[in-house]
Amino acid sequence: MAVKNAFYAQSGGVTAVINATACGVLETARLHADKIGKVYAGRNGIIGALTEDLIDTSHESVEAITALRHTPAGAFGSCRYKLKSIEENRAQYERLIEVFAAHNIGYFFYNGGGDSQDTAHKVSQLSEKMGYPLTCIGIPKTVDNDLPFTDNCPGFGSVAKYVAVSIREAGFDVASMALTSTKVFILEVMGRHAGWIAAAGGLAAEQAGDPPHLILLPEIALDQEKFLAKVQESVNNYGYCAIVVSEGVKNSAGKFLADAGLKDAFGHTQLGGVAPVIANLIKSKLGLKYHWAVADYLQRAARHIASRVDVEQAYALGKAAVEFAMSGKNAVMPIVIRTNDSPYQWHIGEVKLAEVANVEKTMPADFISEDGFGITDKCRRYLLPLIQGEDYPPYKNGLPQYVKLKNIGVPKKLHTQFKI
Amino acid sequence: MAVKNAFYAQSGGVTAVINATACGVLETARLHADKIGKVYAGRNGIIGALTEDLIDTSHESVEAITALRHTPAGAFGSCRYKLKSIEENRAQYERLIEVFAAHNIGYFFYNGGGDSQDTAHKVSQLSEKMGYPLTCIGIPKTVDNDLPFTDNCPGFGSVAKYVAVSIREAGFDVASMALTSTKVFILEVMGRHAGWIAAAGGLAAEQAGDPPHLILLPEIALDQEKFLAKVQESVNNYGYCAIVVSEGVKNSAGKFLADAGLKDAFGHTQLGGVAPVIANLIKSKLGLKYHWAVADYLQRAARHIASRVDVEQAYALGKAAVEFAMSGKNAVMPIVIRTNDSPYQWHIGEVKLAEVANVEKTMPADFISEDGFGITDKCRRYLLPLIQGEDYPPYKNGLPQYVKLKNIGVPKKLHTQFKI
Repeated sequence: MAVKNAFYAQSGGVTAVINATACGVLETARLHADKIGKVYAGRNGIIGALTEDLIDTSHESVEAITALRHTPAGAFGSCRYKLKSIEENRAQYERLIEVFAAHNIGYFFYNGGGDSQDTAHKVSQLSEKMGYPLTCIGIPKTVDNDLPFTDNCPGFGSVAKYVAVSIREAGFDVASMALTSTKVFILEVMGRHAGWIAAAGGLAAEQAGDPPHLILLPEIALDQEKFLAKVQESVNNYGYCAIVVSEGVKNSAGKFLADAGLKDAFGHTQLGGVAPVIANLIKSKLGLKYHWAVADYLQRAARHIASRVDVEQAYALGKAAVEFAMSGKNAVMPIVIRTNDSPYQWHIGEVKLAEVANVEKTMPADFISEDGFGITDKCRRYLLPLIQGEDYPPYKNGLPQYVKLKNIGVPKKLHTQFKI
Repeated sequence: MAVKNAFYAQSGGVTAVINATACGVLETARLHADKIGKVYAGRNGIIGALTEDLIDTSHESVEAITALRHTPAGAFGSCRYKLKSIEENRAQYERLIEVFAAHNIGYFFYNGGGDSQDTAHKVSQLSEKMGYPLTCIGIPKTVDNDLPFTDNCPGFGSVAKYVAVSIREAGFDVASMALTSTKVFILEVMGRHAGWIAAAGGLAAEQAGDPPHLILLPEIALDQEKFLAKVQESVNNYGYCAIVVSEGVKNSAGKFLADAGLKDAFGHTQLGGVAPVIANLIKSKLGLKYHWAVADYLQRAARHIASRVDVEQAYALGKAAVEFAMSGKNAVMPIVIRTNDSPYQWHIGEVKLAEVANVEKTMPADFISEDGFGITDKCRRYLLPLIQGEDYPPYKNGLPQYVKLKNIGVPKKLHTQFKI
């Protein structure tokens, strides 16, 4: 088998551990020099392929590649860009073939969430529909935890840990302040369509009365009366109320609460931020003093408090992707298969890209408590293994040392441009 | 010298390390059983004294006391409550004497920021003005870092570390996303009157182009035009712009931007949150895609990423407070005295409470860069030692194990109530 180069790219919202996957891909590829020549990374995902903006990872030292394992975000740049189908935009695919052929690329590794696996699936059709021989492997990643088949998605476990740790810590704070000051604390977390991340906050509550006392999920339309009664009940019982709210929580009309009409002084609608909306509701209806936090990017970038299980799985999936390609597999995605909750046991399995693309895994109904404001024991059994273990990055001068790669471009061979 | 009981209480906004100070107080007091009988903690600060709501810390195990060192927030409850002067409200002081006398309290340790040291100072006048013999020691604590004389305030170093780590991590995230998505990220941090916390974000920027690219301090009125030009410049030069904004930043009319007029659908002014105000400004004037985070309580509760130096100093100050009392000192507060920046060298000193009360330490002008959007090397030399070292709490089931004390009340001896 002739030596071919490989293309690897990161796509969609980045995570605390997507670079651990990159580390797994690059370290494993370097072990297969008989089949894989160079690994070219796409600068900003698939856009790097379309614009022939490739990064030659062979210039990166062994130390730099190793350091990717503890570095958050996307070392090669990510993108939000979805390919159309071959039928809709053949030119895109012709361009990919042109670039891949020019750089002798025979392997395609695409690391992302649902949209990205759709892209990977479409690219995998190049061989069949357009006659360009390409081994195409998707690699899962998304804090949203909404990819099907896999036990969980790399990136999610670390966000879950961040949210559970944060609401536990803030809960201790509010409990201290409640007598004379703040009685309600609201932490807004990601999850526009599924409540996985908010649900993970529930792990912090190990005993009755532990924070968070309420979780607002996008799956459950907010019943204001019921919610306010629960807030007051928590304040009555425990002296305070700690709430985790998903950014995607909706009102009974199905509208995002975050878009429910905050306006600035000029009358512009304020974009984003459901926490202040909930806070205002509590203030105006219950008159309770509140504080609110919006974790936003901090939660998915928080490599300093990453889950060790998450880091290990992220790495293992990158490694598996290369090994799949080496063993002749194609148009598949490695996944995590769970065989036991406690102790957590898992191994790597696979699924066809065709089956992954455009399927969203939502929270099962039996993961949500009957009143809609918490998680069930079943949910806890699912989530708990995913936040196990710490995997601290190295520190220097009091700060985590994250690697910045050289990211040296591959000299262009084509004299054509491609408009994105 | 007769054995007397001691009173210890926590006051004001809590921190990640105020319990480390409590640990220092309690462990040291237990070494002086010849002079100190029991340590009674005030439930919710001075309110616990006024209402005779005392906690008997002798019921807490050695392990529980030790665990306070790694537990955030105020284990005995804190309060926001300022005593009036003896002249203005003599009844309060008579009540304190009544409670202290009933419980044979001869030592008073009050752990807090500026307002709390004012309270400690007033209580220290009990001996002199009202003839009740009491040894009174203040112990510094405040994330605001605004107490005078001391090199820094326990709690600040850990918030500083949290903010620097967070903006570094979020900066990596935004850099990954900038080509096709978010170009500006805004992190709102605490600091209503002084920019210490926001300034600490600047530690993350070690090289030109590193995030944060801009810091908005309460000391500098926001010049919109200049600010927007800087944001655009950063996006042009680095592809993105990461901003740390202090909650206390003001407009040129001296008004808090956070109060500048966001209204909800009912026309109520939205309270708090300068980050969305800045985000809206950037969106409307520059048309750049943004994300924003508000760290709020997460920053000061983040024991999981506490500064080791901060933990050590917090403990040392609690220990010193008891040793001061044992050596006959009175009406003083232990402080940190710095003798060298690098390597950081410090020891414990002292200052009279009379000199501390109601003095606020602001950021020196030469700590702020000429353009007003960053910190100087001098500021960096001051801040850097304070975030050194990690001091991770123990974990179980993927979560930090923070102690909840039994907090068993001391049986009341008085049959009178006191209205707060």
